[in-house]
Amino acid sequence: MERTETLAELGALLGARLVTSGSDLDLHGRNETHFPFMPPDAVAYPETTDEVAAIARICHAHDCPMIAWGTGTSLEGHSIAPRGGVTVDFSRMNRVVEVNAEDMDVTVQPGVTREQLNTELRATGLFFPVDPGANASLGGMASTRASGTTAVRYGTMRDNVLGLTVVLADGQIIHTGTRARKTSAGYDLTALFVGAEGTLGLITELTLRLHGQPEAVSASICAFDDFQAAVDTVIATIQMGIPMARIEFVDEATARAFNTYSNADMPEKPHLLVEFHGSDSAVAEQAERFGEIVADMGGSDFKWATRQEDRNALWKMRHNAYYAALSLRPGATAVVTDICVPISRLAQAVAETRADIAASGIPGPILGHVGDGNFHAVLLIEPGNDAEKEKAIALSHRMAERALKMGGTITGEHGIGMGKLSLMEREHGPAWQVMGNLKRALDPKGLMNPGKMVPPA
Amino acid sequence: MERTETLAELGALLGARLVTSGSDLDLHGRNETHFPFMPPDAVAYPETTDEVAAIARICHAHDCPMIAWGTGTSLEGHSIAPRGGVTVDFSRMNRVVEVNAEDMDVTVQPGVTREQLNTELRATGLFFPVDPGANASLGGMASTRASGTTAVRYGTMRDNVLGLTVVLADGQIIHTGTRARKTSAGYDLTALFVGAEGTLGLITELTLRLHGQPEAVSASICAFDDFQAAVDTVIATIQMGIPMARIEFVDEATARAFNTYSNADMPEKPHLLVEFHGSDSAVAEQAERFGEIVADMGGSDFKWATRQEDRNALWKMRHNAYYAALSLRPGATAVVTDICVPISRLAQAVAETRADIAASGIPGPILGHVGDGNFHAVLLIEPGNDAEKEKAIALSHRMAERALKMGGTITGEHGIGMGKLSLMEREHGPAWQVMGNLKRALDPKGLMNPGKMVPPA
Repeated sequence: MERTETLAELGALLGARLVTSGSDLDLHGRNETHFPFMPPDAVAYPETTDEVAAIARICHAHDCPMIAWGTGTSLEGHSIAPRGGVTVDFSRMNRVVEVNAEDMDVTVQPGVTREQLNTELRATGLFFPVDPGANASLGGMASTRASGTTAVRYGTMRDNVLGLTVVLADGQIIHTGTRARKTSAGYDLTALFVGAEGTLGLITELTLRLHGQPEAVSASICAFDDFQAAVDTVIATIQMGIPMARIEFVDEATARAFNTYSNADMPEKPHLLVEFHGSDSAVAEQAERFGEIVADMGGSDFKWATRQEDRNALWKMRHNAYYAALSLRPGATAVVTDICVPISRLAQAVAETRADIAASGIPGPILGHVGDGNFHAVLLIEPGNDAEKEKAIALSHRMAERALKMGGTITGEHGIGMGKLSLMEREHGPAWQVMGNLKRALDPKGLMNPGKMVPPA
Repeated sequence: MERTETLAELGALLGARLVTSGSDLDLHGRNETHFPFMPPDAVAYPETTDEVAAIARICHAHDCPMIAWGTGTSLEGHSIAPRGGVTVDFSRMNRVVEVNAEDMDVTVQPGVTREQLNTELRATGLFFPVDPGANASLGGMASTRASGTTAVRYGTMRDNVLGLTVVLADGQIIHTGTRARKTSAGYDLTALFVGAEGTLGLITELTLRLHGQPEAVSASICAFDDFQAAVDTVIATIQMGIPMARIEFVDEATARAFNTYSNADMPEKPHLLVEFHGSDSAVAEQAERFGEIVADMGGSDFKWATRQEDRNALWKMRHNAYYAALSLRPGATAVVTDICVPISRLAQAVAETRADIAASGIPGPILGHVGDGNFHAVLLIEPGNDAEKEKAIALSHRMAERALKMGGTITGEHGIGMGKLSLMEREHGPAWQVMGNLKRALDPKGLMNPGKMVPPA
């Protein structure tokens, strides 16, 4: 078996930083949701771009798969190893390389997590806004084109990555983008690697756009009698041009989960969680106008989180929503859905999904980034119950079909991984084959995160 | 010569909408700046995506180059035909297909111009913000990843194209993106075609993101004694988090050009032109705070354009800056430079460029989108004076080298075309070959706008 030789060469390169022990393989074969255990043959812990390039040269010479690993918090089984190979774990490449405060950019290694970055930035007056629920690595966030609660104001990873260093399948190192705010110099390779889920190359450095910490922040939570009123509130707010930094929806079941998991005290009703950023007077004005819209739409139980610690608690509760949802069915695992539709279709998409979930008998709290038209149902299933799992996946696929019919997408922010591969052709038609052609152009041997993203060769 | 047969087949398809007459070839062989006359063999005027696909199938079968043409206003010779072939002129595909006001998006054919679109949108309360100087076509703007005066607030074409219909080299039709605000579904093909300058496919439909017409707008112009003070004003404004919709710089020579060409009445000094968008009170607050910064930095001659017609005149003057600059040297043509640097390096980049221009003896007014770190020198040269042209191009290349050393890019918004091809390797290193690999994956025969963008095959 040639892999022995590959591992021997990698071991000579990395010493104790190449691990083939059971517990490490176990960890890197697991995932946050319902996908089966698929371990790699080894886990490599590089410390530099040059080491990653050397790993790739060895793997390339031996036709050995390479799978990138950040924090393992992706929800579609992106980083498990269906064909074995070497998982490249970036946890030792976790350094903030350079902060350019005047230019509001930062260069980081891929293993830096979003919370670590914001902690290191605190004194600069700047912050990095993209915030998926988990404390994910920035390399992983770029690779899944992640977003979170602030995309409505600050955009997603697509909008906040200025440039990358990437190691290609054959070990070649390239740089994409610059520190300039915009460029028209050639194909947008940065955008090609962002969202590629490690199937085109290994990201070893990222230059990110930063934003000024707002002078004033105001957050609030309010309840509605039905979902339509909540969505109408969001649409009216957008159309009046009130700039929201965050606008999140949670349904009755999620409110119940927050009450138990995060000791919240919310009526079991649909809620909006909202935040405004700006100058003192701008935030006060935005909050006031938003309050008027909520009143018009029949919203109630309005609570403003004026103190920093109250806001932190509010958003921590929101970021833990996945784990809170899991607690609604102790011991459950989840099929997490992630469709995104034009906002005019959002109320209908949620209503049809709720009816579908109710008919299925599977618990499925719903929550989402309503300002983007993106929402999730967390379908709670019993581990090992294949019938239930299939039912949940079928439900998830019906949601995807619904999104496509409405002009939307099968995934707003979680990505494809193992879970959405069968839906790619439905969304992209012949453009999926074009993706396959691009993949072959950059990785002709098919070694980068194989079995994901593109049509089977 | 096989092209006779190609043209016969195209003629059978298009009838009178395939033109081979001298005047039409003349027009499509010319460009706005200094590049030589390079006409195609024919000009095709398709009316539908299917017709474009049929044109591509014929050209593909006969190995005939295809060059996309919008309004011909690009500045780097993007649409001239160094290898002949068929220019696909999109002027008959100029229909706004669908406005989705609630979702704030619009689908257009590529020949729609930015002014036409905004005229058609006027009653909706929405607008499309990207505004290069020329009244360019939206297909052309996407293809060059254009921006303009509003990118500091609303982004560039990269940020405002949600999806595309593209005809590939072999005539295959694909769709990229969706109407959802964000997606993580696979490689970002939309971003790949935006900025590809027609070298990967022909864009036949675009879905664009729209923005709400601001409730209040306030614009002003103010003078500074030196450029450094103007840039310091911009940096302070950004760092205070004052959201500018536009912030433009013009130098003394450009002010002089405005005075003659647009009947302005400006002191011959560096100026900033600025605009704020928002609610009445937000705009009033922003304007006041900006005024304080200008006063601190020693700015003067502050004039607010409170009336709509005054603002229109102000921005019309700015959009005509290229033609105003040309008028400084009657009969001149121009080498237009377009570097973009991190804003902390902008003052130095402009100072070094001014010294370089002064030493060259070539008139070269400077103006730019300072909020983005992007500026242009319009190097005015005598047509037919090759020595002067070479001197201007050398100067332009020195600017590009300067930008790269400062972490910037050789082109902020004009693109590569014929003019920047020789600088691509300098900016991208081995990533330029990666672009070549991507090009071959999508257009193996090298028929789409050949002689541009990628390394020679």
